[in-house]
Amino acid sequence: MMRVVRAVTDLILPMAVIAYLFVGEVRAQEMLPKAPPVPEDNPTTPEKVLLGKTLFFDPRLSFDGTVSCNSCHNVMGSGDDGRAASVGIRGQVGSRGAPTVWNAAFLTVQFWDGRAKTLEEQAKGPLVNPIEMGMPDHQSVINRLKKISGYRELFEKAFGKKDPITIDNVAKAIAAYERTLIVPSRFDRWMAGEKNILSKKEQEGFEVMKTVGCFSCHMGPNFAGPQLPLGTGFFQKFPVYPSDYDKKYDLLSDLGRYEVTKDPNDKNRWRVPTLRNVALTAPYFHNGKVKTLDEAVRVMGKSQLNVDLTKDQVEKIVAFLKTLNGEFPKQEMPRLPVGDGGSSVVE
Amino acid sequence: MMRVVRAVTDLILPMAVIAYLFVGEVRAQEMLPKAPPVPEDNPTTPEKVLLGKTLFFDPRLSFDGTVSCNSCHNVMGSGDDGRAASVGIRGQVGSRGAPTVWNAAFLTVQFWDGRAKTLEEQAKGPLVNPIEMGMPDHQSVINRLKKISGYRELFEKAFGKKDPITIDNVAKAIAAYERTLIVPSRFDRWMAGEKNILSKKEQEGFEVMKTVGCFSCHMGPNFAGPQLPLGTGFFQKFPVYPSDYDKKYDLLSDLGRYEVTKDPNDKNRWRVPTLRNVALTAPYFHNGKVKTLDEAVRVMGKSQLNVDLTKDQVEKIVAFLKTLNGEFPKQEMPRLPVGDGGSSVVE
Repeated sequence: MMRVVRAVTDLILPMAVIAYLFVGEVRAQEMLPKAPPVPEDNPTTPEKVLLGKTLFFDPRLSFDGTVSCNSCHNVMGSGDDGRAASVGIRGQVGSRGAPTVWNAAFLTVQFWDGRAKTLEEQAKGPLVNPIEMGMPDHQSVINRLKKISGYRELFEKAFGKKDPITIDNVAKAIAAYERTLIVPSRFDRWMAGEKNILSKKEQEGFEVMKTVGCFSCHMGPNFAGPQLPLGTGFFQKFPVYPSDYDKKYDLLSDLGRYEVTKDPNDKNRWRVPTLRNVALTAPYFHNGKVKTLDEAVRVMGKSQLNVDLTKDQVEKIVAFLKTLNGEFPKQEMPRLPVGDGGSSVVE
Repeated sequence: MMRVVRAVTDLILPMAVIAYLFVGEVRAQEMLPKAPPVPEDNPTTPEKVLLGKTLFFDPRLSFDGTVSCNSCHNVMGSGDDGRAASVGIRGQVGSRGAPTVWNAAFLTVQFWDGRAKTLEEQAKGPLVNPIEMGMPDHQSVINRLKKISGYRELFEKAFGKKDPITIDNVAKAIAAYERTLIVPSRFDRWMAGEKNILSKKEQEGFEVMKTVGCFSCHMGPNFAGPQLPLGTGFFQKFPVYPSDYDKKYDLLSDLGRYEVTKDPNDKNRWRVPTLRNVALTAPYFHNGKVKTLDEAVRVMGKSQLNVDLTKDQVEKIVAFLKTLNGEFPKQEMPRLPVGDGGSSVVE
């Protein structure tokens, strides 16, 4: 199955690049759509979104009650945790950084290595990852939620009265909430016709990125590749070109998608990440070894395009990337439902 | 100084009890005022509250960026963390539970042992407690905040343009936000005249508590003692009467206020905690060893009043205590400001 998918994406990647070469600017300049793609079996409803937001913020979804989805994907901030590698229960540190959840609904696969095809599938992972939220299994998540009596009404409103508290519905609700986490930026207002909203330097940065080839991968409305069907990943080798950065920033030891497929061709291949909010989501790359955006731009130039970007080019690119900083919406806090008969947390 | 304070409270405690005996029902039935006492040197302003809320939710106030005030005092829930003992950075577990921050502004001293006289003083503690937020010192907190450029405007709006980012102002802003976390309950509507809003059983529970003597300590608008001047603690020995519970729930090994004053008379003395939201803040007592509210009620009866409460009495008291569950207000999420030049978090 994985091999089939990879074969398909291996076909699609060059096809997309060819399409890009033909369509040129237009491909690289798409505005962020108002709403992301939604899977047929999980239409977004206000009730599901409210439940999903509540679950997203509830640390009782972790074994010891200390880690919520929001702990690593902080939507009061940039949708991440500002750390090189995220921290789960009992202070355990993972090996990769948390990607931002803002606009993640536009990504066609989830996780750095694309091992989840949908937001729904992604949401189930950290719950039972022993170094993340650490629940022993999905049934334990459901048992805990059933103990918190206040959740019943939220689930019934979202999914009906017949056995609504299931792990699939937990994942559907969280994904439905995440599909509301769409954040356009000044760039989109520029695209919509506010021509003076980007400075000369920012516009020059955009031109530099087109010219040197950044958009051959970071194309599309989310600057993360073409909008392929959900579940179809858009992967790229990183680094493509060997350089001193490989050792300096330990770019090769994590084999990326290979850890999922065990296909030697997938060694050091990664899902192309979004550039939206990139200036807000330091540190950089899967291992967070690069601390600043200007250095991340230099590494990308060298490793992916074999270009030694000049100081001027880097400054302009950084200026442009900041135009992708989201103009974040106001959100109301959810109220975490209460249980009967004491705390539901295990210590 | 501490001895003087204790001498004063030792005088005030019996005086308050005498006053209570005279005034009777009225003392035990105060409604929660709309606003708490405010120190003269920290008047509440919307700008301070916004800054304080932002700081309260910002995990970058902890050394590794994983723990915010809200981690242990979750205002989307009951203002606590549902744990027996709270968890700080690197999975370190403390020895006492986090008291709820809801209505904490009515408490006249802070922490289980009353070691902080004000919310301002309290706010400074966990920041530099090595097993809580773990910053090396207050200056490091300020240095970090100064690195997050977006904070400057928030501080200037709250405290003016002249050197606004100081630890005292951090504490003042957090305290100002906490003074907005006031949550009345059905009990207050009952007191205001909605006579049918409490069931017969709930009203009977109130009568039982009066009769057996719960309100000789849990009096006043916050059910946490008389409204003494800010900084004047209202303490009580726990347990007063020895019982099997002492060993069963390890009630004696933490010496409470003695750890602050080293006065032998303060051994096992504690600030009288609020009963508001008590049904929502399991597990119980300073060490969280008691998991359920009904058992907590039994322990209190025996240890403080030498009364073996009947099953019927316990049920009625529990029913009444649930009328103190807050009717929580909606709150908007703060937006955590961004920094320039990369993440400010240390790993």
